[in-house]
Amino acid sequence: MRGVLDIPEHLSGVQELIGDALVRVERAFDAQLESDLPPVDELCEHVERYRGKMLRPTLVILCGAAVRDGLGGMLDGRAFDQIATRAHACAGAVCEMVHMATLVHDDVLDEADIRRRGQTVNALRGNELAVILGDYLIASAYELCSRFDSPVPARLIGRASSVMCTGELLQLHSRENASLDVATYFEILERKTGALIGSACELGALCTLGFENALDERTLALGRFGTLLGVAFQVQDDLLDLTGDEAVVGKSVRKDLEKGKLTYPLIHHLANASPDLRGRMLRLVAHPGTLGMDDDIRSMLTETESIDASRAVAERLVGDAKRALGVIPEGPAKDMLCLMADAVVSRAY
Amino acid sequence: MRGVLDIPEHLSGVQELIGDALVRVERAFDAQLESDLPPVDELCEHVERYRGKMLRPTLVILCGAAVRDGLGGMLDGRAFDQIATRAHACAGAVCEMVHMATLVHDDVLDEADIRRRGQTVNALRGNELAVILGDYLIASAYELCSRFDSPVPARLIGRASSVMCTGELLQLHSRENASLDVATYFEILERKTGALIGSACELGALCTLGFENALDERTLALGRFGTLLGVAFQVQDDLLDLTGDEAVVGKSVRKDLEKGKLTYPLIHHLANASPDLRGRMLRLVAHPGTLGMDDDIRSMLTETESIDASRAVAERLVGDAKRALGVIPEGPAKDMLCLMADAVVSRAY
Repeated sequence: MRGVLDIPEHLSGVQELIGDALVRVERAFDAQLESDLPPVDELCEHVERYRGKMLRPTLVILCGAAVRDGLGGMLDGRAFDQIATRAHACAGAVCEMVHMATLVHDDVLDEADIRRRGQTVNALRGNELAVILGDYLIASAYELCSRFDSPVPARLIGRASSVMCTGELLQLHSRENASLDVATYFEILERKTGALIGSACELGALCTLGFENALDERTLALGRFGTLLGVAFQVQDDLLDLTGDEAVVGKSVRKDLEKGKLTYPLIHHLANASPDLRGRMLRLVAHPGTLGMDDDIRSMLTETESIDASRAVAERLVGDAKRALGVIPEGPAKDMLCLMADAVVSRAY
Repeated sequence: MRGVLDIPEHLSGVQELIGDALVRVERAFDAQLESDLPPVDELCEHVERYRGKMLRPTLVILCGAAVRDGLGGMLDGRAFDQIATRAHACAGAVCEMVHMATLVHDDVLDEADIRRRGQTVNALRGNELAVILGDYLIASAYELCSRFDSPVPARLIGRASSVMCTGELLQLHSRENASLDVATYFEILERKTGALIGSACELGALCTLGFENALDERTLALGRFGTLLGVAFQVQDDLLDLTGDEAVVGKSVRKDLEKGKLTYPLIHHLANASPDLRGRMLRLVAHPGTLGMDDDIRSMLTETESIDASRAVAERLVGDAKRALGVIPEGPAKDMLCLMADAVVSRAY
């Protein structure tokens, strides 16, 4: 979240620590992907350009620090090497790599051309390469994850990845289903986005507490925080896909509509629109090719107050996420987690 | 390899044991893929039809038994529950699941319609579903693999998968390269096919010996046996792709040529053909659409004795594989491994 947040004075030290920790994450990430085969190396360089907000590694580091706060705070001098151990850096790299693998495959599925303001692998080099590259990233993540002395990190990441895939499968199955209900929508989000972010938070806590503490209340609380944050993040993402500008968002937009994916703003709209308006939107969903000016969708959603309703849902989720942190000791890491949670719903990209 | 081998009398007991062990593997496989989501379950049923020779689980079981033979033989009455423990069954299921994930993604890359005499997932349900399904299979394999008390199985499987992907990337990079050399071809095969089969053999040994024996000479010998067997298997596969009948092979053939993949028979042919014949073959490689009768390729390859040369290479690899078993104690499991190795090059499917 470097550069994304407006950081208050008392947290600037934490921010700096995170920045330094992320350098270690990047190093672990690059070292894992390094190959003796030049064509593999060349590809991985392209993928490194996908690195954006580093949300998951940041959460690994912060959650690792948050469970330490009670043990003496993270700003006591010796702090840095204790919150950014090799374990934390590897765990952060693993989570980012899994996430990147899903981005590469998602872009194939979505036939997206733009990602992080650059061309996608599929657009540049074809779907075949993008499929294998995604496979390579996920395999590399598992390989890195299995280097821990304990099988717990591999267990968390294996579980999160398979849950993510069931979310994607459920989403694909729900395509062009104009009567998709809110419960299924949130089920998809919790699996597709919540699971990995939740696991990143748990993993961060466990790197500090020791892997035998998978059921510690702090680990579970941070897992729940991450899952809720992930769902809130995705609601905001879905809203930006429908109402954002490609130039601001930095990736292809209006893809959900093109692919017949009903997201919260649309589900809310269809449930609250007049028969006439509902009919117009359903025609757009069925024939996204006829989509005219972007403003059309935005004004249709505004008529049913669906943009505000989506924001309200995301804000409620963020509130729940912050409340889940009750058992986490007060301190700068916890404050930063709350700040990040708020940023998720205020972001425009 | 059930039903594939002509089993001599003294090994019929082993064959029966393997059959029973594979039932446990299948149970572990199905249990792992079971989902609370009906669309996911439905898909996995389709994938179960892909299960063919079960080469990798068979090797897990046999290698597990082979390192026991020296400890008293596998046919001493209590044998079955010792060679088909829960660990062996899970390890077998993991290897088969990783393999199946690669089949599903390979069929997307190859645009193949037929697999195991049935329609492929991509042909039936589209590429998107096939990509996610492959991801789900690989994630499920990792999840199952992380259930062991030790991180060693996850380490072996993570490593094998990432090496497999580098093999695929190297292969993709080498497409339409009419001057692909034999060394690069074998590098691709060792990574793409050898690595997982080698790991299956090591994993089988380790399930019996204990995971702390990753560097035991028997573990390493079986790993080398598997890698060489895998490469031999792939040479035979590549030969069948060029010269086999779809009806006998049971999957789409002539895909390598269509995709501009140079395999051993072609590399040998191009190196040994007259300028005229070489020119004809190069035109076919460049424009596979103009491919006429299948017999044409076969007779062109025959003219340079490239079919015999490919078989000879596969046989030499099988010989090397069997020789790698020197440190493995004599017994029915070892005999069966040798029999399977021979079958790899004599098969027509």
